[in-house]
Amino acid sequence: MKREVNVAVAGATGAVGVEFLSVLERLEFPVKNLKLLASARSAGKKMKFKGTELLVEEMKPDSFKGIDIALFSAGSALSKEYETHVHQAGAVMIDNSSAFRMREGTPLVIPEINPQDALLHKGTIANPNCSTIIMLMAVFPLHQKYPVKRIVVSTYQAASGGGYAAMQELTESTKAYLQEIPFTPKVLPVDYAFNLFSHNSAMQASGYNQEEEKMIHETHKILRMQQMEVTPTCIRVPVLRAHAESISMEFEGEAPSVEEARALYEAFPGVAVIDDRDTNRFPTPREASETFDTYVGRIRHDPFRKNVLNVFAVGDQLLKGAALNAVQIAELLV
Amino acid sequence: MKREVNVAVAGATGAVGVEFLSVLERLEFPVKNLKLLASARSAGKKMKFKGTELLVEEMKPDSFKGIDIALFSAGSALSKEYETHVHQAGAVMIDNSSAFRMREGTPLVIPEINPQDALLHKGTIANPNCSTIIMLMAVFPLHQKYPVKRIVVSTYQAASGGGYAAMQELTESTKAYLQEIPFTPKVLPVDYAFNLFSHNSAMQASGYNQEEEKMIHETHKILRMQQMEVTPTCIRVPVLRAHAESISMEFEGEAPSVEEARALYEAFPGVAVIDDRDTNRFPTPREASETFDTYVGRIRHDPFRKNVLNVFAVGDQLLKGAALNAVQIAELLV
Repeated sequence: MKREVNVAVAGATGAVGVEFLSVLERLEFPVKNLKLLASARSAGKKMKFKGTELLVEEMKPDSFKGIDIALFSAGSALSKEYETHVHQAGAVMIDNSSAFRMREGTPLVIPEINPQDALLHKGTIANPNCSTIIMLMAVFPLHQKYPVKRIVVSTYQAASGGGYAAMQELTESTKAYLQEIPFTPKVLPVDYAFNLFSHNSAMQASGYNQEEEKMIHETHKILRMQQMEVTPTCIRVPVLRAHAESISMEFEGEAPSVEEARALYEAFPGVAVIDDRDTNRFPTPREASETFDTYVGRIRHDPFRKNVLNVFAVGDQLLKGAALNAVQIAELLV
Repeated sequence: MKREVNVAVAGATGAVGVEFLSVLERLEFPVKNLKLLASARSAGKKMKFKGTELLVEEMKPDSFKGIDIALFSAGSALSKEYETHVHQAGAVMIDNSSAFRMREGTPLVIPEINPQDALLHKGTIANPNCSTIIMLMAVFPLHQKYPVKRIVVSTYQAASGGGYAAMQELTESTKAYLQEIPFTPKVLPVDYAFNLFSHNSAMQASGYNQEEEKMIHETHKILRMQQMEVTPTCIRVPVLRAHAESISMEFEGEAPSVEEARALYEAFPGVAVIDDRDTNRFPTPREASETFDTYVGRIRHDPFRKNVLNVFAVGDQLLKGAALNAVQIAELLV
């Protein structure tokens, strides 16, 4: 691919779309021209990129002419509808939806973990689920050297995973609660104010919801390891934009020492350790918000099992969980 | 003990103290006289019990004359300071603090689980930690019939565990956030608004904080089972007064079927099942608030291990996690 590329952002006005623009700018991605696409409803809006105002256009089948990379975050249905148009224009689609993640032949990539897979693409590369990305950023640095065989994970997921609408519902319902005004949820299944709930994706026959199944199957694909046992519980908490995860890892052999685990995390790109037992300082979503790293802390052995190590990880759902990871995939292509 | 008893509440004006009064009333506990005790600062306040206004008195060594049962929730230091005075007055102390929980000879009781232990008391009965109670209410109904050998638990703990001050800091910091006003935390280590953090109890050499260690050691004592493996991660979430816990149970043999687990929960006093996969309805803290039951849902097998079953449990921290459990202990004595 060329040194400078023409980029389209599909779903530009959404919660992830806005972050695509900020990440392209922060990473100094070699953008030649940037095209902003959205639904007819959002067309005509203006968005800033590198100090210039750009007009949002309505996405149409011929929108991708001259485009090299199309960053999609417009929902599965539109990704499926537009994939052929993107390919026919000669562009590569990097898709943040779940549409193609498990499709054979479509790479599912976390650039720090399986960058080599990106190069095998046939026109589309899928961006993993946010909870999967943050979990694997906390598992892989150890797994590389100390093979992990089982992960028990409980998530503390932010509203942003449900887009702007969910973020707004969190703040609106909280305002109403504080003013003692009744609130009827419109976007989410329960009143979100000072409340948490089992992830509202569809429950599967297994008793696991879609979000949890994604964490299992995407892990298998990314690590190329079908036998990795993943036991997820996905919970939405009243936090705005960074996911936290309580992760228990069981190793094939003995677990690394806490000191070695810390060193492995510190040496891994995109991971930062916040783990100060003396001052009780560990990662928090507010601190992780709007930053690129996945933060790992509470690094400690299981009290009873030598081959188990537990950590607490936090990462910005809209950045490493979505827009940042997608733009990092684009960087692999340039 | 007599049919009608004289009850003292120490720490009456605190978050748990207020609930003691409401629980004594709701359970129609046979109170003859009720004495409300607090620090000098709170003495003189008035509180309502069964429609009557009672004056809060300053707690002093001679406050327990004529008292049969003293419900304490005034912090470990005061429990230790006053225990002898309570005993000398001939009263039984039921203590919500951690002062005596692990002391040999002091029963640590969840009335639905080990009521027989209460009768072995030598003047003091300890009320377990809130997270321990809610976890064991979700473990014991199965454990009775299908022995559990390991529990991996991640908590989603409410502000109320830190008392009124923490609850107030949650609402105050959230109001400030929504009004875009800077907020400096006074009670908690981080800004709590739309944020979560590793439990702020002191970190131990093990890498587990005090709250987590309580969940391990109190479980051993209550179940009389030192070999029970408990792997806790305690996290405070921006919820006001009900704790949630993601619990993974490993059984000695095969796990019960989901149907049998549900039946065992439904048959257990103080536990209610909220588990509707079709409508994605599971327990939430808002729904559990101000109610007596521990709610269990997301009952499902591990995706990879036949001897593991996972659940999500929610209970009111101030009620089953504190005041209700203590008054239920008192009921065992009457």
